[in-house]
Amino acid sequence: MNSDKPIVGINRRVLLSGLAMLPTLSGLPFSAIAQTQTTQGDPLGSWNEGPTKKAILDFVRATTDPSSSKRVPPEQRIATFDQDGTLWVEHPVYSQVVYCLDQVPTLVEKDPKLKDVEPFKTVLSGNREAIAKLSLHELEKVLFATLTGMSVDDFEMEVKRWLASAKDGRWKRPYTDLIYKPMLEVMQYLRSSDFRTYIVTGGGQDFVRVYSERVYGIPPEQVVGTAAGIKYGYQKDGTPFLTKEPKLLLNDDNAGKPEGIHLMIGRRPCAAFGNSTGDREMLEYTGAGDGARLMMLVLHDDAQREYAYGPAQGLPETKVGTFSQELYDEAKKKNWTVISMKNDWKRMFAFDEKG
Amino acid sequence: MNSDKPIVGINRRVLLSGLAMLPTLSGLPFSAIAQTQTTQGDPLGSWNEGPTKKAILDFVRATTDPSSSKRVPPEQRIATFDQDGTLWVEHPVYSQVVYCLDQVPTLVEKDPKLKDVEPFKTVLSGNREAIAKLSLHELEKVLFATLTGMSVDDFEMEVKRWLASAKDGRWKRPYTDLIYKPMLEVMQYLRSSDFRTYIVTGGGQDFVRVYSERVYGIPPEQVVGTAAGIKYGYQKDGTPFLTKEPKLLLNDDNAGKPEGIHLMIGRRPCAAFGNSTGDREMLEYTGAGDGARLMMLVLHDDAQREYAYGPAQGLPETKVGTFSQELYDEAKKKNWTVISMKNDWKRMFAFDEKG
Repeated sequence: MNSDKPIVGINRRVLLSGLAMLPTLSGLPFSAIAQTQTTQGDPLGSWNEGPTKKAILDFVRATTDPSSSKRVPPEQRIATFDQDGTLWVEHPVYSQVVYCLDQVPTLVEKDPKLKDVEPFKTVLSGNREAIAKLSLHELEKVLFATLTGMSVDDFEMEVKRWLASAKDGRWKRPYTDLIYKPMLEVMQYLRSSDFRTYIVTGGGQDFVRVYSERVYGIPPEQVVGTAAGIKYGYQKDGTPFLTKEPKLLLNDDNAGKPEGIHLMIGRRPCAAFGNSTGDREMLEYTGAGDGARLMMLVLHDDAQREYAYGPAQGLPETKVGTFSQELYDEAKKKNWTVISMKNDWKRMFAFDEKG
Repeated sequence: MNSDKPIVGINRRVLLSGLAMLPTLSGLPFSAIAQTQTTQGDPLGSWNEGPTKKAILDFVRATTDPSSSKRVPPEQRIATFDQDGTLWVEHPVYSQVVYCLDQVPTLVEKDPKLKDVEPFKTVLSGNREAIAKLSLHELEKVLFATLTGMSVDDFEMEVKRWLASAKDGRWKRPYTDLIYKPMLEVMQYLRSSDFRTYIVTGGGQDFVRVYSERVYGIPPEQVVGTAAGIKYGYQKDGTPFLTKEPKLLLNDDNAGKPEGIHLMIGRRPCAAFGNSTGDREMLEYTGAGDGARLMMLVLHDDAQREYAYGPAQGLPETKVGTFSQELYDEAKKKNWTVISMKNDWKRMFAFDEKG
């Protein structure tokens, strides 16, 4: 994610730019989730041969081979992954934003007087142009109302329910199907080499935790994300419960990524993966450590199989996951590897496998 | 830890009550660290036979035996431990407070004009009575000055240096020797049963992380504690680094414990261990989950081998790690197990082993 002034895991600028491209409110039935098996024999079977794949294999060999001078003790093997645009599709707009808008009908059902109150009235209308014209202040109201103010258990249930039915507008599949198979392989390969894989996302920590274990094999305790305050309290019968508060505790984007890594992990990663300027500081912080390092950035240059945006290398401009030419130049200068989706990835999604 | 209005992991009330009992500033040479081996055969060899030991064994059997109806899947096996008074000695005052006062000479060396400025002047005098009379505002200055305002790397180095030389006033040993052997055994036994053990402490997260892996076998990423804000920035040569800011991000005590557990772990523990009213909410939150549960509170009732304080069960009053009669009654009512140091523990410390 790019940063601007984020609101509980959501980037304001993106809301303005992405809303016009939103799919209509979703409500399709559940379908099978992304497969995560690796191709037999080659741990990186979805990668084309070449310097990018070699960089990954070389890094793992250097850090794990007992005879390597750059071997890293297992307890220090930490790899961090941005999520949106690095592990799953972020265009035309972040899935979490779609979730927030999709929750408005449920919200109004619980509190019917909202249906005549802006901005809920406009979101309910389903009029995409009108939604895109909502002011930042109005959008904030939707985000706070849908991401906070409820118990963490209720929130988890709502996200689960949404994930089981919502479908993306292009592939007509659950959002959790739109995971990049090559990146799943990298995570599995690292884990099989005693690395601990973490998600470090500008997205909402509680949102991603709902599906991270099932989809990525990453448990909730290894998800670092933008986090709201949490409040301990009691139900009428005395049962304790936790409520999500409408206040920002950790803005896990840009400089907030290394800050969040220190807070939640307390170790510097040896490897970091991102795709946008919001990941720059995480890669920089990772790269500043001693010994073997691996910093990689996914470049979305494949409009046919996914999307193409930069604006690095003359790719179209975007406000959702900006990969600037400046970032591209920095990557080249610092020996960060730029992953070309088009050239480096043999297949994009697990459901492409037979294609 | 008990709560009051805490300042970066330190409890104000404690400062007032504990400072009068402080050992003189320490500076003794390094000595051997606590041994962590378990007694062969019995995983809880330092525990006397009885209902307390049986409660631990029964819980582990119920949650891990494949034929048990209460078996918990390994990924959900989370156990949380308070530190001060639960894993190591907290009397006469928290080790971290001693650290802060011990750091004042170093601080003054770097900034000599502080030696004539209060409260640093008084702390430097070594006059315990005068130190105990410092106002809360003055003590805050010492804590902020010694726990924040420096890079996380410098802080880690300073804590390491201190741990290697500082000695406790009663046993004349490094503070990290004063770890309760029976609790080390519980942690090791749980880990060998595929539980992940976490420290959840009112103390400073960055402070505890410095020694948690070496002393408890708990890695930095499994330490949840009171945390200051962290700021990403650059040295003159462009190298990025993280600075500890003088602002409180997470107050990990009382209700802050379940809140911190949600933020940092994202799962409800199955087992929780504490020793004071500051741990009440963590045990309550743990107990409110489904299935087999284990909630335990260490009662310091052994003045001969350690300390005796409550005031539960008529034990002497204290402001460092209060175990109130109300908490004792709640424990009995809710089937939380109270561990009697005197009756349940065969030995106290690893260095007692041959005694």
